[in-house]
Amino acid sequence: MKNYALLYAQSGGPTSVINASAYGVITEAKKRGIKTYVALNGIEGLLKGSISDIDNESDQEIEKLRYTPASAFGSCRVKLPIHTQDKTQYEKILEIFKKLNIHYFVYNGGNDSMNTCSKIADFMQESGYECYVCGVPKTIDNDLLCTDHCPGYGSAAKFIATACSEIALDTNVYAHGRITVVEIMGRDAGWLTASSALASAYGTGPDLIYLPERPFDIEDFCVKCKNVYMKKHSCLVAVSEGIRDVNGKYICSYATEEKKDMFNNTQLGGVGIYLANLLTQKTGIKTRAIELSLMQRCAAHIASLTDNEEAVLAGRKAVEAVSDGITNKMVTFKRESNSPYKMTCSLSPLCDVAHGTQSMPDEFIGKDCCSVTDKFIAYATPLIMGEVNIKYENGLPVFASLKNKIITF
Amino acid sequence: MKNYALLYAQSGGPTSVINASAYGVITEAKKRGIKTYVALNGIEGLLKGSISDIDNESDQEIEKLRYTPASAFGSCRVKLPIHTQDKTQYEKILEIFKKLNIHYFVYNGGNDSMNTCSKIADFMQESGYECYVCGVPKTIDNDLLCTDHCPGYGSAAKFIATACSEIALDTNVYAHGRITVVEIMGRDAGWLTASSALASAYGTGPDLIYLPERPFDIEDFCVKCKNVYMKKHSCLVAVSEGIRDVNGKYICSYATEEKKDMFNNTQLGGVGIYLANLLTQKTGIKTRAIELSLMQRCAAHIASLTDNEEAVLAGRKAVEAVSDGITNKMVTFKRESNSPYKMTCSLSPLCDVAHGTQSMPDEFIGKDCCSVTDKFIAYATPLIMGEVNIKYENGLPVFASLKNKIITF
Repeated sequence: MKNYALLYAQSGGPTSVINASAYGVITEAKKRGIKTYVALNGIEGLLKGSISDIDNESDQEIEKLRYTPASAFGSCRVKLPIHTQDKTQYEKILEIFKKLNIHYFVYNGGNDSMNTCSKIADFMQESGYECYVCGVPKTIDNDLLCTDHCPGYGSAAKFIATACSEIALDTNVYAHGRITVVEIMGRDAGWLTASSALASAYGTGPDLIYLPERPFDIEDFCVKCKNVYMKKHSCLVAVSEGIRDVNGKYICSYATEEKKDMFNNTQLGGVGIYLANLLTQKTGIKTRAIELSLMQRCAAHIASLTDNEEAVLAGRKAVEAVSDGITNKMVTFKRESNSPYKMTCSLSPLCDVAHGTQSMPDEFIGKDCCSVTDKFIAYATPLIMGEVNIKYENGLPVFASLKNKIITF
Repeated sequence: MKNYALLYAQSGGPTSVINASAYGVITEAKKRGIKTYVALNGIEGLLKGSISDIDNESDQEIEKLRYTPASAFGSCRVKLPIHTQDKTQYEKILEIFKKLNIHYFVYNGGNDSMNTCSKIADFMQESGYECYVCGVPKTIDNDLLCTDHCPGYGSAAKFIATACSEIALDTNVYAHGRITVVEIMGRDAGWLTASSALASAYGTGPDLIYLPERPFDIEDFCVKCKNVYMKKHSCLVAVSEGIRDVNGKYICSYATEEKKDMFNNTQLGGVGIYLANLLTQKTGIKTRAIELSLMQRCAAHIASLTDNEEAVLAGRKAVEAVSDGITNKMVTFKRESNSPYKMTCSLSPLCDVAHGTQSMPDEFIGKDCCSVTDKFIAYATPLIMGEVNIKYENGLPVFASLKNKIITF
């Protein structure tokens, strides 16, 4: 074991279960007798030497970490330069690794973070420093390559489907209702928006679903919404923030452009509110826009137990990999079967993950371009199964509160 | 008992627990051997004769009703004329009551609904028709007179506080964060916005809270937000949709006015997004606006058990009252103590409830006009205690699906 230490850090947008992966990393490392450090605010903190020692945190708080949303160790969106062009930052990292005897590096994040992770692994290998690097996937967007799905997606999907089932009931109560447009995250891939269909599949949910994988036609959208409304006296539509017209132009950019002159291009709501206004203008029907916003990535109180357990597992697997002397990989999931659900963990080269994103396959998207298929429902259902056993105090979920004390070294 | 039948109906905006009150009414009536009808879409449906027989629903669905959000029997926003001026609609109601032997009427709603309820009770009394009328309070706004609190508020408060605690963690993750403005419902009273303070009191939550009970000063708001941001590198603000300037003008109307010419006065987001844009313009700091929107009144998956139980109780009490020959009252709650929490049910005259709304008392609002007091926390905490035991199937909460079959008579 050589008393090698491990460094763990989080990066990119938070999820409801990224800390579950942290919990997996920390407890697995402890089990194996590996000293664990954490870089605060990911690579950004690492470069500044903002490092904390996990031994300074109580076991009790580490236990709570499993069910705590957001990035408990802070996050960043820093990208590293290509190391063959500029070594400065890499050498800074190497210096810290040497000082703290860090030979294991586990980075928890999405696409960009895996790119960073890959670059660090390459640099360490080339510089001859013994360092085993493994990425732990994390993204609500579910758009990482090489893996059946990503930790974070199942919980976001469970929140979205639950919210849509509740909103669908709420918007159905009046004899003369509205058209309600729910805007859902996912700029390049429709996985999150598609998950709203779980509400419809198992109860009440959106009538129409628009994904970025298909060109969006405003006229056709208005006609379809109106038709549903005429039949039901209400209509619930789920739209991805990333829908684009036939020329690939984001629909939300229409909204921004219209308002740019007047408001100096400040934030004015997205595609949901734009389409709701447009629908009212074109059909005369009352509308409402709802943006599910940040809750999609932080509603840990309704996290999926399956997602939570898999996030822990991904953390454990990464520690297992690096301590087995494996490097430059990311933990990936392979689906063995839908029913009963069976998933196995494997490892994929970071370089394969880091380039490109995973869109929804054609077989998951309805031919009418405003629905999903039964195959998608079969794919997504196991990922939202089970409820986490969060403790409540004073009526509220109890979340971890870490010291994150920066060490001197 | 005379085989008198009971008519129940729901009105106004839905809540997470209005159906729990329906469950209380239906099961209590059944226990007492009282035949129960439901008017679909409240008074609007009653006037059209859209009435269903609760015997047509299965016990299983009635059980699920207890945890189902929104108004399972539909809702309306119809106001009745003063009966001394126009009797037509009242006579229509009387005719239906006579036909179906309805002598008990239980109406479940907020302020306007209690007004309707009161008018019907008055008319029945004056027309000499034996009819016992009781209102069941329902509003997330918590602004009904004569009662310590309203069914619906506790669950909305629990959702808001939970959401704010999760959002607070999420928005704290970057070394250089944003100012996040969360817009919360409640046009005339700050109860809902104040509940976000529960997150801060018991963990992490909003740094600043702005209620409609205090005049809102934009300059002071910007300074305070900036000060928090300079200290913490992030700032979370909760604002009520109903905040007004010193002249009583709604801040959200500033937003509407600015945009009226260009966008023909369509919906363009509310006060949250207006203030977020303003903050960016005045301070140069990145901002984000979040509207908690409809989830505040329909997130049954995170309903308060206390609220749910009290909503059932309110329904039962109303049936008890009418079958005891009491009329023209609303069920009200009286708080006996905060800790241990003890509440008793009583009845107040509908005419006392129907006029006016209940704002937050001064003792609940911080002297700095951007916080709440410990007294408010002591008041609100018991109301969000406990979690409902919702059943999940396919990873989603199971909600009632009623037939709502209209009977012919």
